Amino acid sequence: MSARNYIKQLAELPTPFYFYDMELLNRTLNKATEASSRYGYKIHYALKSNFDPRIVEAVRRAGMGMDCVSGNEVRMAVENGFAASEIVFAGVGKTDREIEYALGQEIFSFNCESLHELQVINEIAGRMGKKARIALRINPDVDPKTHRYITTGKADNKFGISYDEIDAAIASLEKLANLEIVGLHFHIGSQIRDMQVFETFSKRVFDIKEWFREKGIVLKHLNMGGGLGIDYDDPDREPMPDFETYFDIFHRNLKIDEGQTVHFELGRSLVAQCGELITRALYNKETSAGTKIVIVDAGMTDLIRPALYGAKHKIENLTSATGSEKYTIGGPICESSDIFGRDVELPVTSRGDLLTLRSAGAYGMAMASRYNLQDLPGAVYSDKL
Amino acid sequence: MSARNYIKQLAELPTPFYFYDMELLNRTLNKATEASSRYGYKIHYALKSNFDPRIVEAVRRAGMGMDCVSGNEVRMAVENGFAASEIVFAGVGKTDREIEYALGQEIFSFNCESLHELQVINEIAGRMGKKARIALRINPDVDPKTHRYITTGKADNKFGISYDEIDAAIASLEKLANLEIVGLHFHIGSQIRDMQVFETFSKRVFDIKEWFREKGIVLKHLNMGGGLGIDYDDPDREPMPDFETYFDIFHRNLKIDEGQTVHFELGRSLVAQCGELITRALYNKETSAGTKIVIVDAGMTDLIRPALYGAKHKIENLTSATGSEKYTIGGPICESSDIFGRDVELPVTSRGDLLTLRSAGAYGMAMASRYNLQDLPGAVYSDKL
Ligand SMILES: Cc1ncc(COP(=O)(O)O)c(C=O)c1O
Ligand SMILES: Cc1ncc(COP(=O)(O)O)c(C=O)c1O
Repeated sequence: MSARNYIKQLAELPTPFYFYDMELLNRTLNKATEASSRYGYKIHYALKSNFDPRIVEAVRRAGMGMDCVSGNEVRMAVENGFAASEIVFAGVGKTDREIEYALGQEIFSFNCESLHELQVINEIAGRMGKKARIALRINPDVDPKTHRYITTGKADNKFGISYDEIDAAIASLEKLANLEIVGLHFHIGSQIRDMQVFETFSKRVFDIKEWFREKGIVLKHLNMGGGLGIDYDDPDREPMPDFETYFDIFHRNLKIDEGQTVHFELGRSLVAQCGELITRALYNKETSAGTKIVIVDAGMTDLIRPALYGAKHKIENLTSATGSEKYTIGGPICESSDIFGRDVELPVTSRGDLLTLRSAGAYGMAMASRYNLQDLPGAVYSDKL
Repeated sequence: MSARNYIKQLAELPTPFYFYDMELLNRTLNKATEASSRYGYKIHYALKSNFDPRIVEAVRRAGMGMDCVSGNEVRMAVENGFAASEIVFAGVGKTDREIEYALGQEIFSFNCESLHELQVINEIAGRMGKKARIALRINPDVDPKTHRYITTGKADNKFGISYDEIDAAIASLEKLANLEIVGLHFHIGSQIRDMQVFETFSKRVFDIKEWFREKGIVLKHLNMGGGLGIDYDDPDREPMPDFETYFDIFHRNLKIDEGQTVHFELGRSLVAQCGELITRALYNKETSAGTKIVIVDAGMTDLIRPALYGAKHKIENLTSATGSEKYTIGGPICESSDIFGRDVELPVTSRGDLLTLRSAGAYGMAMASRYNLQDLPGAVYSDKL
């Protein structure tokens, strides 16, 4: 149940903090697992979206693998009981130390982002007497129709290997004796709400897969990355994304070969809706232009998505219900960008009111900073209240 | 001396890290102090720009006061030996606990950002049996001609009290018995390079000051905030800003009254140029569109200004000098916004090369995060090499 149902308990706590609806989290994890296992698909949780230990524990209990993007993330996965055989390691800038650590742990696969990286991993694996399982990350050039900043599958960005390079990659793989190509990796962007994008994408992957088959290259695994979006506008209308439709699209279009497994790296769709950032109204003010402002005690240090991407989190007043006003909601940080919303329609809001920023479970706490020497926000779990 | 002069020592160290040229830092602090004390002006260092302990120590030795924007910053100032009588505390979202702590420390002044805040501070001061010294932050509506995100002096934002409210503020101050108005506070934005802006601004402040004098209100202090910009394009051409011209503008236009003191809150202009973010090239790659990319081991978690504001830090290769290429320089973070520059002209750059992002001493480390579970960057000081 959302924070609204725990107002009494939450009112006592020092703000700001993240509130996690553990029941919704578990239902979401189970729904995703059910929908994916119908086709034998494996989900690896994108740890970057939220590394809260309670969330990590719930993910492990749900039987998911882990998608890591740094050596520290691989370490966290290992230390939290995730089987190395279910850990994938992506990222354009893997350092030698990170590669060594992950090789030592015998992880499932390195998602490789460049020909150069193949050479480096091959060299390190050789030095360690290991064979590295790698998946080529291919840039499928599908327009994800999402925010420019969370677009990663278009041809001219830093991620993955472009079509033109696939031949060269295959040729070099033949020479790189310490690598074993186990699959392909894709990730076209995040917060994708238009299912048509996944249609296009999965058909594209089918073509690529066939192309490899014709070349006589066996691909054991296809990793489709993450990206399934959530309903930021109205989290109560759609507390869980439509995982059934999502996985069904891949099932219809991928037409996988005998023995091939399909993997996903979901982050936002699993954990965004269970999280809320709870904050307290501190001050009311009005600009000379007539804008009514409510200053709250959470800021861009706690949740940077609005400042960084212009993202909109639904804002609600948990303790007032009378009247209606349009407010700009701003945080305490000395930056003009520290604004959570403009023209936000709320009940009359005053000092002491408890506000919530909904859908903040993904890329919230994970991106927090201590700018202005702010304390990091705390975490409160519905099942401990 | 810049990092280029310490390549031998730096090459041994694990990257990424911030390098601080302590000699330039001290020269800059001294130059600013000299230029300001010519007119008896007091500089309060904007701690938010960099809270590195060695920098804080250098600032204290230079005899500056402190400009804080959170209770934790006030605490850091106090614990690092800054006299409470030289600490100002600004920020739109001061919490009760922060106000209580600062009142207990008897700081120089609260820069108050709203009528509502005046009431709250008055109430807390009353409860504590204290008298709070406050400066009204007035929004002077001067266009700072800088990035939209670092604009804070325009009329329709969350900072300060607008012109229309000044009368109401004065009226309420008469009733708020636990407040003593000691001055006015302004801050119109950051990274202001056009000295004409400070001309306009200081003339505006003169008018406001006269208006108060005619009302019979004695203003002991005028606080002009920060905002003096630096040369990001070519840090070697202008390693120190033109403090003389800057303070002279205020001197010519403010025409302060007998006994009035003038205060400044400089951040960026004091510490930006002494800092560099040192990083290592990891991978070369090329997109299908022909863009050459160098992936480095520092990312937006270490320096978020390019991702957040589109800021450009001059990038140099410290270990290669031959040839010339245009590169996109990207970090290891799984975000398309994790790019430090496009079309950056560099010598041919390859794996292992040491790169520097110049002018990173302000709003660099201070805004770092652990997104992707990255380690926070370290710090290296020229005088310890
Ligand atoms: C390679 C990769 N996989 C998975 C994800 C998770 O994406 P999402 O949270 O949109 O599911 C990301 C997000 O940036 C990513 O870069
Ligand atoms: C109130 C106030 N004073 C001083 C500063 C420091 O500004 P700068 O670093 O541009 O000198 C800031 C920066 O945001 C500020 O908000």
